[in-house]
Amino acid sequence: MTPAQVEALLAEVAAGQITPESALRRLRHLPFEELPFARVDHHRHLRQGQPEVVFCAGKTVPQVLTICERLAEHAGSFLGTRATEEMAAALRARFPEVEWNPLARTVHLPPRPSPRPPTGDILVVSAGTSDLPVAEEAAVSGIAFGHRVERLVDVGVAGIHRLLSEGERLSEADVLIVVAGMEGALPSVVGGLVRRPVIAVPTSVGYGASFGGLAALLAMLNSCAAGVTVVNIDNGFGAAAAASRILAQ
Amino acid sequence: MTPAQVEALLAEVAAGQITPESALRRLRHLPFEELPFARVDHHRHLRQGQPEVVFCAGKTVPQVLTICERLAEHAGSFLGTRATEEMAAALRARFPEVEWNPLARTVHLPPRPSPRPPTGDILVVSAGTSDLPVAEEAAVSGIAFGHRVERLVDVGVAGIHRLLSEGERLSEADVLIVVAGMEGALPSVVGGLVRRPVIAVPTSVGYGASFGGLAALLAMLNSCAAGVTVVNIDNGFGAAAAASRILAQ
Amino acid sequence: MTPAQVEALLAEVAAGQITPESALRRLRHLPFEELPFARVDHHRHLRQGQPEVVFCAGKTVPQVLTICERLAEHAGSFLGTRATEEMAAALRARFPEVEWNPLARTVHLPPRPSPRPPTGDILVVSAGTSDLPVAEEAAVSGIAFGHRVERLVDVGVAGIHRLLSEGERLSEADVLIVVAGMEGALPSVVGGLVRRPVIAVPTSVGYGASFGGLAALLAMLNSCAAGVTVVNIDNGFGAAAAASRILAQ
Amino acid sequence: MTPAQVEALLAEVAAGQITPESALRRLRHLPFEELPFARVDHHRHLRQGQPEVVFCAGKTVPQVLTICERLAEHAGSFLGTRATEEMAAALRARFPEVEWNPLARTVHLPPRPSPRPPTGDILVVSAGTSDLPVAEEAAVSGIAFGHRVERLVDVGVAGIHRLLSEGERLSEADVLIVVAGMEGALPSVVGGLVRRPVIAVPTSVGYGASFGGLAALLAMLNSCAAGVTVVNIDNGFGAAAAASRILAQ
Amino acid sequence: MTPAQVEALLAEVAAGQITPESALRRLRHLPFEELPFARVDHHRHLRQGQPEVVFCAGKTVPQVLTICERLAEHAGSFLGTRATEEMAAALRARFPEVEWNPLARTVHLPPRPSPRPPTGDILVVSAGTSDLPVAEEAAVSGIAFGHRVERLVDVGVAGIHRLLSEGERLSEADVLIVVAGMEGALPSVVGGLVRRPVIAVPTSVGYGASFGGLAALLAMLNSCAAGVTVVNIDNGFGAAAAASRILAQ
Amino acid sequence: MTPAQVEALLAEVAAGQITPESALRRLRHLPFEELPFARVDHHRHLRQGQPEVVFCAGKTVPQVLTICERLAEHAGSFLGTRATEEMAAALRARFPEVEWNPLARTVHLPPRPSPRPPTGDILVVSAGTSDLPVAEEAAVSGIAFGHRVERLVDVGVAGIHRLLSEGERLSEADVLIVVAGMEGALPSVVGGLVRRPVIAVPTSVGYGASFGGLAALLAMLNSCAAGVTVVNIDNGFGAAAAASRILAQ
Amino acid sequence: MTPAQVEALLAEVAAGQITPESALRRLRHLPFEELPFARVDHHRHLRQGQPEVVFCAGKTVPQVLTICERLAEHAGSFLGTRATEEMAAALRARFPEVEWNPLARTVHLPPRPSPRPPTGDILVVSAGTSDLPVAEEAAVSGIAFGHRVERLVDVGVAGIHRLLSEGERLSEADVLIVVAGMEGALPSVVGGLVRRPVIAVPTSVGYGASFGGLAALLAMLNSCAAGVTVVNIDNGFGAAAAASRILAQ
Amino acid sequence: MTPAQVEALLAEVAAGQITPESALRRLRHLPFEELPFARVDHHRHLRQGQPEVVFCAGKTVPQVLTICERLAEHAGSFLGTRATEEMAAALRARFPEVEWNPLARTVHLPPRPSPRPPTGDILVVSAGTSDLPVAEEAAVSGIAFGHRVERLVDVGVAGIHRLLSEGERLSEADVLIVVAGMEGALPSVVGGLVRRPVIAVPTSVGYGASFGGLAALLAMLNSCAAGVTVVNIDNGFGAAAAASRILAQ
Repeated sequence: MTPAQVEALLAEVAAGQITPESALRRLRHLPFEELPFARVDHHRHLRQGQPEVVFCAGKTVPQVLTICERLAEHAGSFLGTRATEEMAAALRARFPEVEWNPLARTVHLPPRPSPRPPTGDILVVSAGTSDLPVAEEAAVSGIAFGHRVERLVDVGVAGIHRLLSEGERLSEADVLIVVAGMEGALPSVVGGLVRRPVIAVPTSVGYGASFGGLAALLAMLNSCAAGVTVVNIDNGFGAAAAASRILAQ
Repeated sequence: MTPAQVEALLAEVAAGQITPESALRRLRHLPFEELPFARVDHHRHLRQGQPEVVFCAGKTVPQVLTICERLAEHAGSFLGTRATEEMAAALRARFPEVEWNPLARTVHLPPRPSPRPPTGDILVVSAGTSDLPVAEEAAVSGIAFGHRVERLVDVGVAGIHRLLSEGERLSEADVLIVVAGMEGALPSVVGGLVRRPVIAVPTSVGYGASFGGLAALLAMLNSCAAGVTVVNIDNGFGAAAAASRILAQ
Repeated sequence: MTPAQVEALLAEVAAGQITPESALRRLRHLPFEELPFARVDHHRHLRQGQPEVVFCAGKTVPQVLTICERLAEHAGSFLGTRATEEMAAALRARFPEVEWNPLARTVHLPPRPSPRPPTGDILVVSAGTSDLPVAEEAAVSGIAFGHRVERLVDVGVAGIHRLLSEGERLSEADVLIVVAGMEGALPSVVGGLVRRPVIAVPTSVGYGASFGGLAALLAMLNSCAAGVTVVNIDNGFGAAAAASRILAQ
Repeated sequence: MTPAQVEALLAEVAAGQITPESALRRLRHLPFEELPFARVDHHRHLRQGQPEVVFCAGKTVPQVLTICERLAEHAGSFLGTRATEEMAAALRARFPEVEWNPLARTVHLPPRPSPRPPTGDILVVSAGTSDLPVAEEAAVSGIAFGHRVERLVDVGVAGIHRLLSEGERLSEADVLIVVAGMEGALPSVVGGLVRRPVIAVPTSVGYGASFGGLAALLAMLNSCAAGVTVVNIDNGFGAAAAASRILAQ
Repeated sequence: MTPAQVEALLAEVAAGQITPESALRRLRHLPFEELPFARVDHHRHLRQGQPEVVFCAGKTVPQVLTICERLAEHAGSFLGTRATEEMAAALRARFPEVEWNPLARTVHLPPRPSPRPPTGDILVVSAGTSDLPVAEEAAVSGIAFGHRVERLVDVGVAGIHRLLSEGERLSEADVLIVVAGMEGALPSVVGGLVRRPVIAVPTSVGYGASFGGLAALLAMLNSCAAGVTVVNIDNGFGAAAAASRILAQ
Repeated sequence: MTPAQVEALLAEVAAGQITPESALRRLRHLPFEELPFARVDHHRHLRQGQPEVVFCAGKTVPQVLTICERLAEHAGSFLGTRATEEMAAALRARFPEVEWNPLARTVHLPPRPSPRPPTGDILVVSAGTSDLPVAEEAAVSGIAFGHRVERLVDVGVAGIHRLLSEGERLSEADVLIVVAGMEGALPSVVGGLVRRPVIAVPTSVGYGASFGGLAALLAMLNSCAAGVTVVNIDNGFGAAAAASRILAQ
Repeated sequence: MTPAQVEALLAEVAAGQITPESALRRLRHLPFEELPFARVDHHRHLRQGQPEVVFCAGKTVPQVLTICERLAEHAGSFLGTRATEEMAAALRARFPEVEWNPLARTVHLPPRPSPRPPTGDILVVSAGTSDLPVAEEAAVSGIAFGHRVERLVDVGVAGIHRLLSEGERLSEADVLIVVAGMEGALPSVVGGLVRRPVIAVPTSVGYGASFGGLAALLAMLNSCAAGVTVVNIDNGFGAAAAASRILAQ
Repeated sequence: MTPAQVEALLAEVAAGQITPESALRRLRHLPFEELPFARVDHHRHLRQGQPEVVFCAGKTVPQVLTICERLAEHAGSFLGTRATEEMAAALRARFPEVEWNPLARTVHLPPRPSPRPPTGDILVVSAGTSDLPVAEEAAVSGIAFGHRVERLVDVGVAGIHRLLSEGERLSEADVLIVVAGMEGALPSVVGGLVRRPVIAVPTSVGYGASFGGLAALLAMLNSCAAGVTVVNIDNGFGAAAAASRILAQ
């Protein structure tokens, strides 16, 4: 509700077209339903074909099922991350069209009909095969958010030529999500090769002084490639959400 | 040098138009000067009116002066971050048109003539007055990168209504840089209010269990607002560089 | 035993009403049973209808059963936290009136008859559904301590309007317990909205750079809302105990 | 502005008593000035004789002077924490009645006339002489917030009898602020002796494995005395603010 | 082998009583078998009735059995720490006289006949019931090292009078081992009450900001009671070994 | 592809011996296949009888089997580290000549025929029996890399004479890999005894303040023996790879 | 005041020999002056010729002077640690017989006449020359506590033979204080060579991954030599106090 | 002294050629002067033209001067690291031929005449200009140890082509010392390009989440390039010492 709309409402009251009581009712819900930025936010999903998202870790199978049923009913689609095989089976029994990606641990009910063609090119780059679950979570989420997604896998910095030979693909993407564990050096190298936004995702892959992904996280925060940004360890979904904020401009 | 250009070069050799030796000379420098993504990167600054950047911390005044002279000669402009007052004085003695921002600790020699009108709206939001140096570094850098920049200051989460009353400004920006120390909560709140990219900058403002900005950094990495990304503690410049990657699309 | 009481005792000795030996016996146990502050402490539970509390984690089922039997016999009631379902079953077989809250993981035997009507209004605010077990531990403990408890759930800072629309409930509570994991920003926002005591409880909810609740803990300790205090990670019971110290004034 | 007041305003519009434009003007500022909890918050200082507070660390002398002048003009009083001797001198030159406590590093301009008699008894307990600056910051702040404050000093746990001999004073306070560095054990002992709220303040006093107060902070968060709450390291002011929230009930 | 003994050996060679070769053989093993301090060390166990010790954690049942058989054969006794119930069963099947303490997780084969009466009084003080496994490991180890051991349990600092009422027992011990988790305050209080050596053992008991015993460890290292020393987290055995070094003087 | 080779290629184009198109094809793959350092790197394994290496942790049995089959086919040998017993069984069913070392958790298919006699003497020194799995991983890897390997076990610094008596073996090795957990002191002592390269491997052996090997890691990084280098916690394979880089000179 | 003494006092009351009032007065001060363990503690200094101790760091010169004057008056001696040269000068101007040790940063006023001959042999062993200030603080404190102290310097583990050649001195000491920074390995080696108590003192000597002494501290807590105990980083005084507790038996 | 030499000595005793007393005298000093590995170590410096090394940080100018005078007298040369300009001036006044490198903070007195031509090629690679002091410390130390040293500067991973264009120089070195701060990615990339030993040196260059070099240190320990080893943060000297151990084979 823009100031103009509030003034119009008040004019209606002044003109006796609506009662003060019903105006009050509308103004009352204003703080969280009607402010311009909030309302836009609230309706964004449907308008853009984006699914509501459920973080399944730590929830029971019935809880996940109930939440997803409500979302399917309300929004016509959903995306579940960190889902177990058991959750996936329960959801597919209920929604046969659910897409289960066991590597990414995602369950996705795409909207029917597809609301619009995908927009924007996301390239998900990952360093090692152990980083693939996080990379796939980013990729599946990016698709669910309505974007085109390509993958570039196994291009760790210890074999730098494999990465360099893909220069064209790197430079053609609109947004790059770069996933790496261990020393987390890949986003710095990629960030030096391209002009586009680079979102770095540290993974908990590693052992010993990896400290559950802390080594990669710190490396990425200290990247010498200016303008690389970072999300939480293993947060492939968050990287896709950030990419979608960029592409939805 | 695109594959087509290489093929053309080889055709010239085949046609006897250039000698193998001079072709070799050109191919030799290829890996770091001529690859499509690298060359673009190299020339980006001039084409887009962006300055070369010098991180002044830990350098001597003569070193900074020498580097900036070379950049001014080569690129016609420069941006220095983490500069001291002494460095600023030395640079202004040499380049009278240098802009010195003592709060941001930046020295900026803008290109003459200005290469193009600024593009994209960056909103730099900061939580407390002590966060201003970092916020200003982001703002000055954003301007130097060729963008429009607005500031929104002193909107900490403990006085949430001040932030909410600025909803319109928040939702109108193309990219938001959100700067906060202490508990680092501001990016989560802002990220929930807008659809646009939010780049969070933790600051080292605080004491005790702030641990030099670690508290704010961890809070931002764990943001419950999906798609918020994070740069290093106090890295206002890096946030502006990330914003510029987004806006330069 | 106040100084006046000690003097009275000594007067009885002087008057030959009790022997030095029996006076000695009473004085001997004085340090931990009879000092004014300690005795008050000791009898507080019965007088105020508060249960004795057992931290069940790391104990065997028989150990918990034995301890609770002794407490029931002695005090007529008990509260067990971090109880397992197996412990709950064993206790309910023995005390049919035990209340088992599987979400809070608490077992509570309320005193019969109820010693007095509950006093003071505690509002337990929680950010996400995963924070509910800790929030419920706080709520059940607050009730067991003899207070009125209300819940306000799922009001995370990324959807700030939901929280703001509850302003009245927030400002009507006597004490607020604010439970949040991830970035731990909620207590700062709530602390800025109300004048009453705010007790922040970080939870271990999250992953990666949450580091088992460290991120939320540090954020809460660095809260920019003056006067917010903090208890240990996941310590819903401790927050309720702190609230009870405030309300028992 | 309560719903009733909004309805009244709308009725005035409906009755043509005020124009829609002026109603809009009032509604516009509503989110941060007129919500019931916010407005109360905003006017609390004047009504209760509490000063506005300035955190002086990291500010220049002129900045502190300017801010304090505005506060004195607006609210008739102020409290500055973490002030330097130079700041104190500048403020006393401007406001002769400013009280400068060099141990607490506070500058306090009390309101004239004193708005009401002080309420509530705060006891500030400190472990060692090196903890005194933090304890004094808490004490001065508590007085500035309008409460009675007593001090109990040098009662470290290694000489437990000195503490125990003060049992009466401990049990008579309404709120206890317990300040300790090194191993941070004092709040646990005090918390076991009294029924009243205990706010623990870790200090950065110590060396080596004290890690700047981390040892004391962790100890206090793990206190075995149920219901002890904790504020940030060295945050004497925050402890007083928390005490004031409790006493202002 | 003292210098005198070496000289005697050389004199035998000079006198032709032994050959250079056999002298060489003896000198060769000198560095680790014959130096005065090393030999004494090597034979200490048998002479003093002390058992050889096996740290069972991470070993298989057959490995533990084999090692213990060799020790029993060689030294007539052994002490195993961190043993599982399965290890205990296997050892008792082989050595019926093995003493299995399931709380301490120790297996002890005492020497037969007992080599000498126990010496020195160790008092093992523990804060909470959850600290008992570590306290018992210390107690059993102290007995196995040939000392008298008494226990004082459940004397946490939140109920300080219970500890103070045991002043006599505290002051009568030759060495005190003080075991505590959570905030680790007990050794400081005990250290202030007695003149004798106090060995502090932090335990991993606790949750959240206990960080696996780190809070208690740091607290003990920062003890304000001068002369308290600390061993590793949960290292009851090490505390007993330190006590034995003191008592064996 | 050396510059000379590129020039030769270009000369062939100039002479019309090959077409520009086919020259382009060869140059295109140049960055990662033909650079002198990269090609050498690529062919090193076969030339030197070194196996390709698979880090098996976190992979499924079929994944490991598939990867090893491809390696066996391509290179005639492989080395798998962090293998489970189940993986070993599957691989031995497929390749009867696979060597399974359950202590080191390695599976090794040696090349047939053996490509050359082993070179260089690696001595793997380990402190305690619990460090053996890591020491064995280093030993098996060293053998697989084509070197002679000897072991020196159970020479912890608390029994320093056992280590000193092995001075000759220590000083005869070409490279020493020193494996230790707990306080990680062994590499410093060994580094002071020998002139040769010492590679320190911290292990996660220990408990409490070992923090998963952090204590040993920090100790080794701070070694007072100049020139000791360190690899990641538990990284026996990495130490062998470093030794092989030294010996392959 | 023993139970017998309390009974005697009560008998005097019963016999009318003293009034209840004066008995009350005596009993009142009992908790901290008269309990057997506390009184002993209080008078220990004078009886044993031990000085009162002042931790000078963070105190002003006048504060140190005032405290020391009171101690000299009351106890006839004092020991100040972490003193500055300025403090030493002020104290020597006031007490010409004060002993100032600039390396140890100690000021010591020995009692006159010396109360008794020193008892017990403390050997202070230090690894490097940079560890000497801490080692000297331990040595001077040990002397001030009334013990014989010898030093063994520069016997780091990287030159192990220098240490081993001092085997006799090591094995003759009653208590060993072992001071080391960097990797902190020395106490483990010494602990393996002697049977006597070994008190390890980590120092903050080092840089980088020493993290202010953390590396040495962790190493010492993880010592493989059973029975080594540890005090805080740089706490030479604490180690001497612990040694004195052992020797005062 | 080899076993053969000891046997020969004993034979001389048996033959009456030397007395038992003088044999004893020689055997007595054996543990630290005569063992084969120790003696070799002791004389290594002179034989190989290597200087004795002084770590100057934390020493006074007179201390450094005294130590260096003794070394010059004894060994004819010395190397001082972490020297201040004042130390350098004092040393050059005394030894005019001392070489002072202000960037590396080293003072070097080369032996006269030079004992032998340098051996082995060390390549010191550094990422940024701020890493140069550490890189220079490594380079100067490598030269002082008697090796040829080349530098490759400013080849950070964000501009990967600059590094790749130096492939030949990288692959020609015998040992590579790779110095990098911030994200510490350079050793992984270099380690993937060359077969030779790579010694990684993290630097404390950076700010914020660099945590004094911790980020770079962890990254290097987690390097995905097998066989990269790591030394302490900023330890350029240690890297050169490790390189010298490798080259001195």
